Amino acid sequence: MIIDCHGHFTTAPRALGKWRERQIKAYESSGFRVLPNELIIDDDEIREAVEGGQLRLQRERGTDLTVLSPDTGRMAYHHGDGQTSLHWARVGNDLISRVCGLFPGRFAGVCRLPQSPGEALAQSVRTSATELQRCVTELGFVGCLLNPDPSDGFRQAPPITDRVYYPLYEKMVELDVPAMVHGTISRNDAVQGTCACYPNGDTAAFMQLCESDLFTDFPTLRLILPHGGGAVPYHWDRHRAMMLDRGRPPLEETLLGNVFFDTCGYHRRGLELLAEVIPARNILFASEMIGAARSVDPETGRRFDDTLALLDSLDTIGAADRQAICGGNALRVFPRLKEVLRHEEVAR
Amino acid sequence: MIIDCHGHFTTAPRALGKWRERQIKAYESSGFRVLPNELIIDDDEIREAVEGGQLRLQRERGTDLTVLSPDTGRMAYHHGDGQTSLHWARVGNDLISRVCGLFPGRFAGVCRLPQSPGEALAQSVRTSATELQRCVTELGFVGCLLNPDPSDGFRQAPPITDRVYYPLYEKMVELDVPAMVHGTISRNDAVQGTCACYPNGDTAAFMQLCESDLFTDFPTLRLILPHGGGAVPYHWDRHRAMMLDRGRPPLEETLLGNVFFDTCGYHRRGLELLAEVIPARNILFASEMIGAARSVDPETGRRFDDTLALLDSLDTIGAADRQAICGGNALRVFPRLKEVLRHEEVAR
Repeated sequence: MIIDCHGHFTTAPRALGKWRERQIKAYESSGFRVLPNELIIDDDEIREAVEGGQLRLQRERGTDLTVLSPDTGRMAYHHGDGQTSLHWARVGNDLISRVCGLFPGRFAGVCRLPQSPGEALAQSVRTSATELQRCVTELGFVGCLLNPDPSDGFRQAPPITDRVYYPLYEKMVELDVPAMVHGTISRNDAVQGTCACYPNGDTAAFMQLCESDLFTDFPTLRLILPHGGGAVPYHWDRHRAMMLDRGRPPLEETLLGNVFFDTCGYHRRGLELLAEVIPARNILFASEMIGAARSVDPETGRRFDDTLALLDSLDTIGAADRQAICGGNALRVFPRLKEVLRHEEVAR
Repeated sequence: MIIDCHGHFTTAPRALGKWRERQIKAYESSGFRVLPNELIIDDDEIREAVEGGQLRLQRERGTDLTVLSPDTGRMAYHHGDGQTSLHWARVGNDLISRVCGLFPGRFAGVCRLPQSPGEALAQSVRTSATELQRCVTELGFVGCLLNPDPSDGFRQAPPITDRVYYPLYEKMVELDVPAMVHGTISRNDAVQGTCACYPNGDTAAFMQLCESDLFTDFPTLRLILPHGGGAVPYHWDRHRAMMLDRGRPPLEETLLGNVFFDTCGYHRRGLELLAEVIPARNILFASEMIGAARSVDPETGRRFDDTLALLDSLDTIGAADRQAICGGNALRVFPRLKEVLRHEEVAR
C-alpha cells in the first residue's frame, strides 16, 4: 500500500476562490462577513475536479491513498481578523471532508488551522485547537498543517517551539495526530513562495526544534517537515556541528523520535541524499501534488512531481525501507489512518 | 594553489567588539559618534589573532590563500543610522586590510558594505558603492559581501535584483569584482543565524535571480552564493521545474554564467551532491573558517570545517575539476586576485 502523505486540493472548483475574494473584499471594505454557508459547490463539481486531477495521477502512478489538505498557497492568514481566518479554514476543511467522503479510501483529510499573525496569535492557537478537534472527531481527519510564519513571508511570529503554541500541541497529543509544518503564501517580494518561503520555513523550523526542548515537554508529539526538509538533509552536518558546539545531545537522540521528512524534492540526487542521511523510518513518501511543479522534466520524460518513479529509480533503498517510506511510516505517524482504511474495508 | 574563497576574521582582537559596543551605546543614548580612529589595535594583536587562528588552520590543511572578510555575524546594520554603519564597515574593512598587509600572499580582502534597512536603503547602496571603490582602489580588495536582508532576520528589504541595488552593481562591474551574497546576524528568534538565516538567505537570493533579468542588465556581474548555495543544489529540480512552468529558459543558460556556489557544506554527501548537480566551473572551494562549526566530527576525527579533506575524500571529482574548484575558478571570479599574487611574487 502506497500512501502519499502530502497532497493539496489545488484543483478546487473556482467557486472556492471567488468566495474567498468576496470574503476578503466584504470584510476589508465594510467589516461585513461572508459566511461559510454562502459557498455553493455541488458534488459533481468536486468529482470532476478530483477525477481529472489527483485521482487520475494516483491511478497513473499507482499510489493508493493521499493525505489531502487545502491549498496552502491560498491560506494567506494576514487578511481580515481571527473570525475571517476561522471561516476560511472551515470552508477549506469542509471541502476536504467532502472529497474524502466522495472517494472513500482514496483520501484522508488534514486540516488547516486558523492561525493569525501578531498579537492575535495566542487566541488563534486556542481557536486552532478547537478547529482541529472538530476536524478529527467530527470529520475523521488524521492531522493538521501548522504554519510556521502566519505573517506570510515576514517571519513576524515566534518559533513554533514557543509556549504560545502549547495549547495546540496538547490537543494534538490528546487526539494522537501529527502536524505538517507547512508555510503558506509569501506576500514578500524577496521570498518567492514555492522555492524559497516553503523550504526556508522547513529549515528555520528544524533549527527551532534543534534549539528547544519541545519534545521533552511533548514526548509523543510528531511533526513532519515537508519539501524534503528544506535545506536540512543537505546541511545535516552543519546542524550536527552546531549542536556539538553547544554541547547538546546528537540530533538522532533529540529529534528523530518526533521529526519526519517527506520526499517532495523532485530531484533524484536530492532524494538519494535524503535516504542516505535520514533514517528510513523518518521518511514519508509524498508528491505535493498537484502543486509546486506541473511540468514534465525533459530529461526524464516524466512530470517532476512523480516522486514515486523517482524513488523507485534509486537502487540504494532496500525493499523493507521502501515499504516503510511508502506506507508503513505514514501509518505510524498518522495512526488515525488505520480508521480511514478500516471504514474503507467495511464499505467494500 | 588552493584558494579558500570564504573566510571571516572572527578572531579579531576584543578591542574591535568593545569599540562597536561603545559606538552603538553612544549613538543610541545620546546621538554621540565614536569615531573609527578611536579604535586602537596594534600589529602584534592582529598577528596573534591570525597566527593562532586562520593561518594555523591554513598551514595544517594546506590551503594557500584565504579571501577574508569581516565577521558577518557582527555586521548588524539595524543599529544606529547610515553613518553608524559606514563607520562600522570602514573599521572592519581597514582591519582586514591590515591582516592582508601583515601576511602578504596569505589573505585577500573582501569588504563589507554599509547597507541600511528600510527607507535608508537607496542612499546606503550609493554609500556602499563608494566604500567598495575605496576598498578596491586604495586597499587592494578583490570583492565585497552583499547582505540580502539588511533588516537582519525580518526580510524587510526588496530582492537583490531590485533596481535600488543597481548603483552598486554598476560599480562592481566597473571595478570587475564579485559579491558574495551573505546574510548577517539574525535578530529574529524564529530564524537562527548560522543554520537558518544564512542558508535561507542563499535560497531566497537564488530564487530572486531566477525570477529576474539582472544578468541581462549586467552580463558580467558575478555573485557567489555561500554555504553550498543554501537549499538550492538539493532542490535543483524544484527550481528547474518552476522555471519550466513559467516558460523561462534553463537555469544553466540564465544564471550559471554569473552565479557561483561555494563548498561550505560540512557534509560529505552534501558536497558530493553539489559537485554532481552544479558544473565544476561554478563551484569555489571555501571553508567559512573560522566560523559556523568549530567542533571535531566524532565520526571522522576532523573538524567539520575542514572542507578540503572532505573534498579530497570524494572520488567523484576528477583532477581538472578539483583544480578548478580549488583555485582556477577563484582566479576567474575574483580577477583582482592575480594582482594580490603578483605583489606577493615581487615581494619574494
